[in-house]
Amino acid sequence: MAVYTEVPDEELCRFVAEYDIGDVVAAKGIAEGVENSNYLLQTFRGSYILTLYEKRVARSDLPFFLGLMDHLAAKGFPCPTPIHGRDGRALRELCGRPAAIVTFLQGLWPRRIESWHCAALGEALARLHHAGEGFAMTRANALSVDDWRALFEKSAARADRVAKGLAHELAAELDALERDWPRALPTGVIHADLFPDNVFFLGKKLSGFIDFYFACNDFYAYDIAICLNAWCFEQDGSFNVTKARLLLSSYRKVRDFAPEELAALPLLARGSALRFLLTRLYDWLHHPAGALVKPKDPHEYLQKLRFHRGVAGPGAYGLD
Amino acid sequence: MAVYTEVPDEELCRFVAEYDIGDVVAAKGIAEGVENSNYLLQTFRGSYILTLYEKRVARSDLPFFLGLMDHLAAKGFPCPTPIHGRDGRALRELCGRPAAIVTFLQGLWPRRIESWHCAALGEALARLHHAGEGFAMTRANALSVDDWRALFEKSAARADRVAKGLAHELAAELDALERDWPRALPTGVIHADLFPDNVFFLGKKLSGFIDFYFACNDFYAYDIAICLNAWCFEQDGSFNVTKARLLLSSYRKVRDFAPEELAALPLLARGSALRFLLTRLYDWLHHPAGALVKPKDPHEYLQKLRFHRGVAGPGAYGLD
Repeated sequence: MAVYTEVPDEELCRFVAEYDIGDVVAAKGIAEGVENSNYLLQTFRGSYILTLYEKRVARSDLPFFLGLMDHLAAKGFPCPTPIHGRDGRALRELCGRPAAIVTFLQGLWPRRIESWHCAALGEALARLHHAGEGFAMTRANALSVDDWRALFEKSAARADRVAKGLAHELAAELDALERDWPRALPTGVIHADLFPDNVFFLGKKLSGFIDFYFACNDFYAYDIAICLNAWCFEQDGSFNVTKARLLLSSYRKVRDFAPEELAALPLLARGSALRFLLTRLYDWLHHPAGALVKPKDPHEYLQKLRFHRGVAGPGAYGLD
Repeated sequence: MAVYTEVPDEELCRFVAEYDIGDVVAAKGIAEGVENSNYLLQTFRGSYILTLYEKRVARSDLPFFLGLMDHLAAKGFPCPTPIHGRDGRALRELCGRPAAIVTFLQGLWPRRIESWHCAALGEALARLHHAGEGFAMTRANALSVDDWRALFEKSAARADRVAKGLAHELAAELDALERDWPRALPTGVIHADLFPDNVFFLGKKLSGFIDFYFACNDFYAYDIAICLNAWCFEQDGSFNVTKARLLLSSYRKVRDFAPEELAALPLLARGSALRFLLTRLYDWLHHPAGALVKPKDPHEYLQKLRFHRGVAGPGAYGLD
């Protein structure tokens, strides 16, 4: 949680005046999002989120992210929608950083995942995948199988500090995934970071997704694999097959799986576990002392990786 | 900036249901306030601030702080007002911590102080002092002259790491302040922490004060001395006498100074500078590596202390 860029009040008011959303009445830096600076902006008209994109987000990717949110909103998918300035532009500059204002999405993200959350998530994820169809821009996944080895190598020498034998285990895993990774599965726009803090609920109803700053074109089933890891394990590391079954069965009611997607799921789940393990391992080993953001423990994803490696087939995820 | 306590969504909804403010539609941890966890809470009715009081705030002081905000609001002073639950109570418990919901005060705090801010501040501060009259509860200032020596002693051995000769300089300053500190000046409820981030403006109009968690009974002029330090120095450490004059002259239009208050101002300004220097010095020397909150540099208040020590009389603050 962090606000990296302090926006002076006069600059903020000048910036907001470029939009047709009314005068600013309040702006609070919010302790969400580890990549960017986010402000909850209130004007006489309502609430908005102002984001200043910090260095981890490539400026050249921003038209894709903002364009995608526009596209999804136009298709009726609930997500923050970029506000366009009086000149038509959604992407502007504030305090020397790229910046945008998006609509405020109501809802709370679930701290304790229950089965019904997973059912609602599956349905919404399939709707997202449908809604992304026809979006004209593309963006390669910058954190997929071809990128993992370089990431691993930045941490390999010190990986055993985190767990004995980890460097060796990850090298072997990488060999296997690079060899077996599927080359042709149904592909489209995926969210690629659908953790619980990016999914909002109002009461029992899923109100939308936020944070599309990892979105890219990749296998739909990889998005599902990310959700299996992020939503279907308990605090103690155990896999909850009921949650997985609800996630997958709700998904397929909206968009059915091809047989090869189902067959690939264990491998994709290993890949997804490795992807988050590698970024967490890197952050764990490289974060500066006194950093504002506390790095996440990589062990959690090591456990998940091992679980999926031991899985015999997609049946382990609760589907027949 | 920090949110120390994560509030699970179900607990939040149960908590808010004890009030008559409508259902929760959003809650964002906000990156303001270094002492407590603050959430900007939105319900169908409007915006509120939910505060969970962390360990630096004594539980026994909370009835004073909340009661004061109630009292001030009843007197028409613009500040957050505690929301009382259906059972009449404003102070409750959430996630094992004392917690309260207050109304949301619109406005932005000024990042770059201009002279007109100081004029508005002076007037509002005098109004605050008047509005506090008649408040039945009292709270001693826990960070006044009698408390500074003990605080100093916790940092004395390592003070010279911050500036050469600092321990000696502070010991001499303490001797002088303990000897000369006034014993009888007009007294009442003071804010005691009126830094720019606690004063909101809507356009050119001061919209209110927030954060009454250092409020106490002490000399009114000590509150003014705190503002002289917090508002009337430039970034380069120079004292801006125009700002000071506007602060003091606007104040006295609402509440005039007794001659002895004016005469004591240089000494009170030294004391106020020492008070913030000592807490910053302590935090600087004692903050744990990797702390969420970056400690503030004590040098700034050392410079201010030295300025006031060199002042011949209250005329240095721009008054005749």
